[in-house]
Amino acid sequence: MQKGNLLNISKFVAPEVIFGLGAMSQVGESAVRLGIKRAFLVSDEGVINAGWVERALIYLKEVGISSHVWFELTTNPKDFEVAKGAAQYLESGCDGIIAVGGGSPIDVAKAIAILATNGGQIKDYEGVNKIISPLPPMVIVTTTGGSGAEVSQFSMIVEKARQVKMAIISKSLIPDIAIVDPLILQTKSARLTAATGVDALSHAIEAYVSLAATPLTDIHALAAIRLITENLRESVACTTNLQAKASMAMASLQAGLAFSNAILGATHAMTHQVDGLLDLHHGETNGILLPYIMQYNMISCGEKFANIAEAMGVHSAGIGKWKLAEKGIEAVRKLFRDIGIPERLSQVGMKEDYIKMLSVNAVKDACLVTNPRDTTADDIEELYRKAL
Amino acid sequence: MQKGNLLNISKFVAPEVIFGLGAMSQVGESAVRLGIKRAFLVSDEGVINAGWVERALIYLKEVGISSHVWFELTTNPKDFEVAKGAAQYLESGCDGIIAVGGGSPIDVAKAIAILATNGGQIKDYEGVNKIISPLPPMVIVTTTGGSGAEVSQFSMIVEKARQVKMAIISKSLIPDIAIVDPLILQTKSARLTAATGVDALSHAIEAYVSLAATPLTDIHALAAIRLITENLRESVACTTNLQAKASMAMASLQAGLAFSNAILGATHAMTHQVDGLLDLHHGETNGILLPYIMQYNMISCGEKFANIAEAMGVHSAGIGKWKLAEKGIEAVRKLFRDIGIPERLSQVGMKEDYIKMLSVNAVKDACLVTNPRDTTADDIEELYRKAL
Ligand SMILES: [Fe+2]
Ligand SMILES: [Fe+2]
Repeated sequence: MQKGNLLNISKFVAPEVIFGLGAMSQVGESAVRLGIKRAFLVSDEGVINAGWVERALIYLKEVGISSHVWFELTTNPKDFEVAKGAAQYLESGCDGIIAVGGGSPIDVAKAIAILATNGGQIKDYEGVNKIISPLPPMVIVTTTGGSGAEVSQFSMIVEKARQVKMAIISKSLIPDIAIVDPLILQTKSARLTAATGVDALSHAIEAYVSLAATPLTDIHALAAIRLITENLRESVACTTNLQAKASMAMASLQAGLAFSNAILGATHAMTHQVDGLLDLHHGETNGILLPYIMQYNMISCGEKFANIAEAMGVHSAGIGKWKLAEKGIEAVRKLFRDIGIPERLSQVGMKEDYIKMLSVNAVKDACLVTNPRDTTADDIEELYRKAL
Repeated sequence: MQKGNLLNISKFVAPEVIFGLGAMSQVGESAVRLGIKRAFLVSDEGVINAGWVERALIYLKEVGISSHVWFELTTNPKDFEVAKGAAQYLESGCDGIIAVGGGSPIDVAKAIAILATNGGQIKDYEGVNKIISPLPPMVIVTTTGGSGAEVSQFSMIVEKARQVKMAIISKSLIPDIAIVDPLILQTKSARLTAATGVDALSHAIEAYVSLAATPLTDIHALAAIRLITENLRESVACTTNLQAKASMAMASLQAGLAFSNAILGATHAMTHQVDGLLDLHHGETNGILLPYIMQYNMISCGEKFANIAEAMGVHSAGIGKWKLAEKGIEAVRKLFRDIGIPERLSQVGMKEDYIKMLSVNAVKDACLVTNPRDTTADDIEELYRKAL
C-alpha cells in the first residue's frame, strides 16, 4: 500500500453486490426491494438464446413484476441504439431497468436510464458528472464477468458519426444492486472467456497504477490480479470448471470496484478508439495494447509495477524493483500467449493509416487523465505503431 | 481465500466512503447531495469540546443547511436516551441526521433514525431485519476509528431495565455517506486509541472466522488485521503520528466493512453483556476476551487462524497450520500487552456472581449465531471464568 494515499481525500462507492452460484434467483426480490413494478429488461440475443432471460422473467413474475424485454443492440453499442431503447422505455410504462448480460447490454441499460429521466441525446452526457436527475432504479445481472460494468460508474457508447467510443462517467451509473452468478459464465465460448478475462486484468492493472488510486481501490485491484493469474488459464481451458469461473467472476467484480473508483489509463483510452473504429472485442484490443502501455508507464511508478509482478506470482526474493517490474510485464505477455490473445494490432485489422486520427481522439478520452505517465498524442502514435 | 465460499450466495453492502485528511470538509456537500435542508446533528460532549461539531456546523452553514445539535447520550448508550433524541428529532423539523463522533453517537443517531420514521420503542427492533420504513438520509462523520459503526448495519443500544446491550441489525442502518477524517483521531487519548484499535481488531478477526464470511469480507478483514498489526502500537504511542492514525482509521473502516457483512462471534456476544452490566469501554472488554475466544474457536477452522497469524506478521515458513494458529493468538496477546490492555475481567469489575446471568444472555445475542464453533451457555460460562 502506498502510504501517502491515506492522507489524501478519496471517495469510494459500490453497489450492493449479490454474488454466488444461483445468485440470479435474487433478481425478483431485488427488484421488489427497489419498488419496481414493471421492469424494462435489457439483454442481447446470445444471452436470450442461452435461456437466461427466460429464467429472469420467471423470477420476476414470481414476485408479481411484469417485464418488457428489449435487446436491439450490438457489440460496442451505438448511440442510435440507445435512443431507440430509451423511446421504448418511455412507451412501455416501465418504472425500473434490469440488465441481463455482459458489458454491452449493461452499458446500454445505463445509457437508457440516463435518457429516460434526463432527456436529450446520449452524447450530451460524455465525460464526467454530466447527469443531473436521478435515474430509475437499476438491477444488473452480469453474464460475462469481465467488463465490471455491473459495479462501475461507467457507460461506454459509440457515437456512430464520429466513430468514437464515448466514456460517460457518473456515480449515478452505479446500479442499485449488482448480481453476479458464476453459473452463467459456463455458457461463454473459450474466446469470449479469454477476452473478458483480459479486460478484467486490464482494469485491475490500470486502476492500480492510476493517479486516482486509493487504498481501497488498491486492495481490490491486487486481489483481482492474483485471482486472474491463478484462474484465467483454467477458466479458458474448460467450460465446466466452476471453481475457475467463480474466481474469474470475483476477479472481474473486484477489478470493477477498483477502476470504477480509480478510473483507468492509456490502455483503455487507446482501446476505446480502436473499438469505435473496427468494432473489435474490447478485451482482445486491451490485451494487445496492455503490455506495451505497461512498458511505457513503468518508469512512472516502479514500486507499483513491482507489486503487480508479485501479484502475478513472480518470485521477488532478491530481485530489485525495476527488474521485478519487467518480470511482471513478461508474466502478463506469457498469460496472454497461453490463452491465445493476438499480439499485434495488424492481426485484427488495424492499419498504419488510422493511427494519426486515433491518436488525436485518444488524447481526449476521459481515461487518459489518470494515466500515471504524462502522455501526448505523439506518445500515443508511437505506442500504436509499436503494437501494430 | 477459502475457495468454497465463492460458490455460495453472499451479499455485500457498503455506504459511500469519503476518507482522508480534511475529509470532514465534505459534510456540507454530502448533506446537500442527500437533499437535507435541516440537519439533526448527533454528537457527544467530548467531541463538542474538541471543536469538531463547531467545525461541522460551519461546513453545513456554508451550503445553506441549518442544524439542531443534540448530545444527551452516554457511553454504551441507553434506550431512554434514544427515545428522548427521537422526540427531539420530530420536534426539531429536521429532515436528515448527521452524526459526528465515535461509536456511541453513531449508534444513537441510527437508533433515532429508526424511531423517527418507524415509531415505537427501540427494543422493538432488536435482532435482524425488523425495520420496515426507510430511514431519513444519514451522513456519519466518525471521530474514533474503532467501532466501524460508520459503515456497518449495526446499532448497539443498552436496554436499561434488562441491563442488556441489544444488537439491532439491518441494511437500513448503513448510512448513505460515511466520512472518515484521520485528522480528528489526533484528539483521542492513548487509552481510547488503544481500546478502539482493539475493538477494530476484534471486528476483523471475528468477521474473518465468521460462518457468514465471504470472499469480499475476507479481503477487508485481512487488510485490517495487517494494518492494525503494523500501526496500532505507534498510534497509541504518539498523538501526532498522523500516518499511524490514518492507517488505523483505514483499518477500522475495513474491519467495519467486514463485520457489517459477515457479522461477528462469541467475543462480541460476551462483551455486549459485560458492557451492558458494567458500562466499560467496549474495546477493552473485547481485548480481554478475544485471546480466550480465539483459543476456543481455533479448532473449528485451523487454516483461517493460520492466515490470521500470517496477517499478524508471524513468520510462517516451515510451520504447520495448528502451530501457526497458536502463534497468531500469542501475537494478539503480545500486541495487547504492549498497549496496556488489561488481561483479566476481574481487573475491570467483573465478579464470579455475574457469570451465570451474563452467559444466559450471551447465548441469545445475535452475534453468537455466526461464531465458527458451536457454543452453549455452559461453554460461555467456562470462557467467562477463564478470563476472570
Ligand atoms: Fe475494459
Ligand atoms: Fe465492537
